[in-house]
Amino acid sequence: MALPERVKIVEVGPRDGLQNEQAVPLAAKIALVDALSNSGLDYIETGAFVSPKWVPQMAASGEVFAGIQRQSGITYAALTPNLKGFEAAMAAGADEVAIFGAASEAFSQRNINCSIAESLDRFAPVLEAAKARNIQVRGYVSCVLGCPYQGEVPLEDVVFVARKLHEMGCYEVSLGDTIGVGTPLHAQRMLSDVADQVPIEQLALHFHNTYGQALANIASCLPLGVATIDSAVAGLGGCPYAKGASGNVASEDVLYMLQGMGIETGVNLDALVQAGAAICEHLQHSPRSQVALAELAKQQTTG
Amino acid sequence: MALPERVKIVEVGPRDGLQNEQAVPLAAKIALVDALSNSGLDYIETGAFVSPKWVPQMAASGEVFAGIQRQSGITYAALTPNLKGFEAAMAAGADEVAIFGAASEAFSQRNINCSIAESLDRFAPVLEAAKARNIQVRGYVSCVLGCPYQGEVPLEDVVFVARKLHEMGCYEVSLGDTIGVGTPLHAQRMLSDVADQVPIEQLALHFHNTYGQALANIASCLPLGVATIDSAVAGLGGCPYAKGASGNVASEDVLYMLQGMGIETGVNLDALVQAGAAICEHLQHSPRSQVALAELAKQQTTG
Repeated sequence: MALPERVKIVEVGPRDGLQNEQAVPLAAKIALVDALSNSGLDYIETGAFVSPKWVPQMAASGEVFAGIQRQSGITYAALTPNLKGFEAAMAAGADEVAIFGAASEAFSQRNINCSIAESLDRFAPVLEAAKARNIQVRGYVSCVLGCPYQGEVPLEDVVFVARKLHEMGCYEVSLGDTIGVGTPLHAQRMLSDVADQVPIEQLALHFHNTYGQALANIASCLPLGVATIDSAVAGLGGCPYAKGASGNVASEDVLYMLQGMGIETGVNLDALVQAGAAICEHLQHSPRSQVALAELAKQQTTG
Repeated sequence: MALPERVKIVEVGPRDGLQNEQAVPLAAKIALVDALSNSGLDYIETGAFVSPKWVPQMAASGEVFAGIQRQSGITYAALTPNLKGFEAAMAAGADEVAIFGAASEAFSQRNINCSIAESLDRFAPVLEAAKARNIQVRGYVSCVLGCPYQGEVPLEDVVFVARKLHEMGCYEVSLGDTIGVGTPLHAQRMLSDVADQVPIEQLALHFHNTYGQALANIASCLPLGVATIDSAVAGLGGCPYAKGASGNVASEDVLYMLQGMGIETGVNLDALVQAGAAICEHLQHSPRSQVALAELAKQQTTG
């Protein structure tokens, strides 16, 4: 039980965040990624190559990749649920891709219209094509701490899907509390069980803050050695299962906590706060980051 | 290092919460306390007997005490900074009183216009009068994890004031992160240092959520055995040092986390959510509780 010395923040705001917000202009998306690039982040999930019928917010992902100012040392990644998406991501110049599975059978059926087993079969050609091109694939497991349709999700189902994705070739498996219902002991147990099967260095936490628990859950998991945290600037993203509720844990809040714990990230907090404030002007809501709200309020009060 | 089986939630919304919000009508305050009484809470800080010139929001505390429907088994407490306040609290029928000290010399000077040493002297007659009447006194220590004026607060100063209040007769010492700047390891170290001098059973955590860290800090401190948590329904209260930033950690969010960890409280979550929603209608802002927002959104979505 030792805290990691350094944590990698995987910024998912431009993808998981914006895909659950009202659509913003292309220029705003490009400006967001560029601002994030300047904050010291070294991994930015930049877009998704999915059906624009299902996710109109991600329709212009190719143009986002074309428009951003790439910086060396930063991985610009894309979500690609299938081979068609993968090819589009490659054409756009994505450095890495991600696939998205579920630990909940009910969620898999309702969200991607197939069983967990079938979804894994569908990922196989993506992983094969990626291997042929020497492209790394990240694997998401959603609903690891609960499901909007079936409620509880057995931990063995989480372990099964995480292990499968790892065995199939995902270099990293990101464990998602998609609806933000988890609490600290549950999160710890889940991570511990998965880490029995997949090396903890290849696991990431992807927690949503719907019930305000995300930071507590992350803090409770860090002593297990997990050193990759997914988050979204300004807490972008909503919860489609509870309109008005909040989305991804905010990168600013994660960073503030890690800094306070003496854990290195290489990310500049003020740059993150400014990047989040800028995109929120387009979204016409305040940042869903307490750190951002406090910092912006302080700047207003003092200056 | 073992989690407590049961945690006492000290509800501070009607006092620490409302004193940092815009003023609400007397009837709304009474309705809030009554709703909280019906939620299963057994400790409600109901008002403050302080100068109405400094804290106009608390001016009608006597009428609040007179108007509420008291339930047996619930402690209705009041903040009383001096003997005059104590006598007024007794006249109003407060079950218990609290005094408010600071671990930060700068904060003490700016907030109560005297040194820490002088403030402790001023509390002596209150403690004496309370003892004569067999009334329990709770002691707050503010700025235990940081100060808006001096920044860092040495842990030995926190330990000194906490130990003093305990020695002077406070049956419980509540450790306040007044500006919500603390992070998990800092909170743990602070609590651990204080617990070397004051029994952990007589300590409470009073964390604000200004930087979104409160639940993470509480989760990190629970394994030390602390079993009393101060919180405010709907996250009532703002931060006078950063206008627009959030206040006390929300009771709903604390309760949700404790329930998820299998820790008993005796409090009903839905009743808390409803109590918070009702007072927030008067305040004309949404509850500052993620759990409340998620639950209310779900109710709206499904019904």
